[in-house]
Amino acid sequence: MDALDDALQKAGAEAFVAYGTSEDATLRYLTSFRTSDPIIYLKRIGEQGTIIVPAMEVHRAGIESPCSVMSRADAGFFTILKEEPDPLKATARVIADLADGDILLPPEFPFGLAMEIMSLRPVSVEKDALTTLRAVKSRQEMDQIRRVQHATEDAMNRAISMIQRSEPVHDHLVTPEGEALTSEMVRYEIHSALLRHGCRGMDTIVASGEETADVHLRGSGPITADAPIIIDIFPQDEETGYFADMTRTVVRGEAAPEIREMHATVSDAQILAFSLIRDGADGSAIYQAVASHFRDAGYETEPNGFVHSLGHGVGLEVHESPGLNMRGSPLVAGNIITIEPGLYYPGIGGVRIEDLGAVTKDGFDRFTNFPEIFCI
Amino acid sequence: MDALDDALQKAGAEAFVAYGTSEDATLRYLTSFRTSDPIIYLKRIGEQGTIIVPAMEVHRAGIESPCSVMSRADAGFFTILKEEPDPLKATARVIADLADGDILLPPEFPFGLAMEIMSLRPVSVEKDALTTLRAVKSRQEMDQIRRVQHATEDAMNRAISMIQRSEPVHDHLVTPEGEALTSEMVRYEIHSALLRHGCRGMDTIVASGEETADVHLRGSGPITADAPIIIDIFPQDEETGYFADMTRTVVRGEAAPEIREMHATVSDAQILAFSLIRDGADGSAIYQAVASHFRDAGYETEPNGFVHSLGHGVGLEVHESPGLNMRGSPLVAGNIITIEPGLYYPGIGGVRIEDLGAVTKDGFDRFTNFPEIFCI
Repeated sequence: MDALDDALQKAGAEAFVAYGTSEDATLRYLTSFRTSDPIIYLKRIGEQGTIIVPAMEVHRAGIESPCSVMSRADAGFFTILKEEPDPLKATARVIADLADGDILLPPEFPFGLAMEIMSLRPVSVEKDALTTLRAVKSRQEMDQIRRVQHATEDAMNRAISMIQRSEPVHDHLVTPEGEALTSEMVRYEIHSALLRHGCRGMDTIVASGEETADVHLRGSGPITADAPIIIDIFPQDEETGYFADMTRTVVRGEAAPEIREMHATVSDAQILAFSLIRDGADGSAIYQAVASHFRDAGYETEPNGFVHSLGHGVGLEVHESPGLNMRGSPLVAGNIITIEPGLYYPGIGGVRIEDLGAVTKDGFDRFTNFPEIFCI
Repeated sequence: MDALDDALQKAGAEAFVAYGTSEDATLRYLTSFRTSDPIIYLKRIGEQGTIIVPAMEVHRAGIESPCSVMSRADAGFFTILKEEPDPLKATARVIADLADGDILLPPEFPFGLAMEIMSLRPVSVEKDALTTLRAVKSRQEMDQIRRVQHATEDAMNRAISMIQRSEPVHDHLVTPEGEALTSEMVRYEIHSALLRHGCRGMDTIVASGEETADVHLRGSGPITADAPIIIDIFPQDEETGYFADMTRTVVRGEAAPEIREMHATVSDAQILAFSLIRDGADGSAIYQAVASHFRDAGYETEPNGFVHSLGHGVGLEVHESPGLNMRGSPLVAGNIITIEPGLYYPGIGGVRIEDLGAVTKDGFDRFTNFPEIFCI
C-alpha cells in the first residue's frame, strides 16, 4: 500500500477514492469485500483505508474486509440526501466531506460521479500506482493463482480425455455412445470440473477446424476430426477472485503437415520466450523475438499469423499488467504472466499454446504442469 | 435506440461513446459483443453504432454484433500511436477524431480516458437515457430472462430436495449418507444445476440459523436444523448475459413460532406488493406500503427488520433500474423487477422471499412459478 501513499504524496492529495462493485478488480484488491452494489473506498496516507457500505452490510464487511467499515448513515449520506435528493450528487458530497481536501481517483473511476466530485474538490487521476502494485504478486496471491491453475489443468485433462475417447468418423468426432462430440459437450465437462474446484469458467474456448483461425471464437457444434482443436480455459476462483489461463491445441486423428509444422513452430516460440523472461527483461523485446522467430520460420505475421500479443499479466483480471506486446513494459520479479504464442490462417486454422508462471530474479517459474500434447 | 438519439440531440452532441469490456452491461446491451478486452462503441444520430476492435476480432465481431465493425488500424490507432505513444491518449485521439464534434459519455465511462477526451473535445454526461432504455425490456429480453428464471427454479428445487432428504439430528442436518449437510454442498448442487442450463451462479446464498440475520452472508459449514435457511440464487445466462433472481426461506424440522410469524408476515407483504404493481405506480409508494405493513404487524424496520429495498430491476445486471426503495421511481410496463420483502433480527434470524416478473399495464406478470414452501 506504500505505492498508494507515494502516489497521494506526489499528487499532493488528501485522499484516494475508488467506487464500484467487486466486479471492479481494483476495488476487490483494495477491499477484499464482495458486493454487487457499489461501495466507496477512501484512503489517506498511512491508513489502511475505509469502506462505506449500506447499514445492512456493515457486519459482513467487518468479517470480509481488512478495511475500516463505516455505514452510509454514519458517513452522512442520508442527512445530505435531505438537502440534495440526487443520489449521485449526494454521494459526491459524502466523498468530498470525508476527503476534506484534494482527491486522487483511479483511471476506471466512473466519469459521472467524478464530474460531481470535481465541482466540489480538486481532483486528479492516479495513472500507474495501482496497476504496478497489482502486477507484482504476494506469496499469498501466487498460491491463490496456483490453486486456480491446478483446477484448470484438471479441467483440461478431462476435456482432452473426452476428445481421446471419441473416434474420428468421416470429418468429425463420435463419442463411445455413438453421438457427435460437440464443443458444447466438452465445454460443459470443463465447467463441471472447474465447479468442483470452486472455480467458474466463462467464455471458455473449445473451437475446432475452420473456427480456430478466429482467435476468440468460442466454438460450437460437432468437433472436426483431423484438424486443430483449440482449448482455452481461463477460470476465476469464486472465493478469492483470482484467475488462471491456459491453452492447448490438439488434433484427434491425422494432423495435416502444415498444422503439424505450425504446432512445432509455436511450441519452439514458447520455449524461446521462456528463455528470455527474467526480472528486468523488456516485454516488447520478448514479443519481438517471438515475432522474428515466426518470420524466420517462414510465417507471415500480418494481416494473419501471429495476430495477438505474446502474453499478459493474470490476477484479479484475466488480462492485466504487464503486457508482452508491441509496446510492452519491463517485467518485474513477482509478475504472474502467460506466454501464449499462436498462428492463425483462414482456410488452414489456428494453433495456440499458453502456459502461466511467475517472473523470477533470473528466469520464469512455470506454474503450468501439463504435457505439450498435440496428436491424441 | 431512439432514446439515445434524443439524448444526443438534447445535449447538442455529435456522438455518444462507450468504452469497456462486455462486463460493462451498457456496452453489452449496445453491442451484443463478448470481449474481455475493452472496445470503443461510437454512435451518431440515426446510426446503429460502430465498434472499434483489434484486427483479430473483426471477423467474430461481425458475427456477434449488429453494430458496424472497424479495426483499430482502420480507426487510425496505430498511426496516432507513432506520434502519441501513450495508449490512453492515443485512444482519446481516435475517439475525438471519429466523433468530430461534441461527445456524450455514459456515467460509468472510465474517468482517466474521459479526462484525455475532454482535453480534445467538449464532453457531457448522459445521465438517464440508457438506464431508462435498459429498464424497459423487449419481448426477446423477457424470453431470455424467463429462461434464466426457469433454470433458477430447477436449481432451487434441487437445493430444497437435498435439504428435505437430510434429517435434523441435534442442531444440524445430516444427509442419508450420514454426513453433515453443509452450505457448500447445497451451493455446489445449485451451481451444477445452473451449469446444465448454461447459467452461472455467483455468490449464491445458502445461509442458515444465525447467519440469516446478515442479509448477504453467503453461508458456510453445517446447515442448522429447526431454523431459517435462506436460499438466494441470482444466476447469469452465459450466452445472453441476462440474470434472474429468486429467494426462498425454508426450515427443516420445527420452526420457532417467531420465525413462523415472520415468514407469514413477509409472505403477506409480498402479496400486498404484487397487488400494487402496475404501469405508472410509484416504486417508493409500494416500498412504503410494505414498510407500513411490517410496522403495523409489530415489526420494527430500523436499525433491524426490513433493512433493504423492496425490489429492483433485473436484466444484464442483477441490480438495475427501477428501484423499489425509499427514493423509488415510477414503474413502467415492460420493467422486469423482483419483489423481495425480508425481516432480519440478530439473535433470531432472517426471512426473505423473492419473486420476479414483469410490470404490465394493469398489474404484475409473475415469471416465478414456484410454491411458497416454508417448513419442509
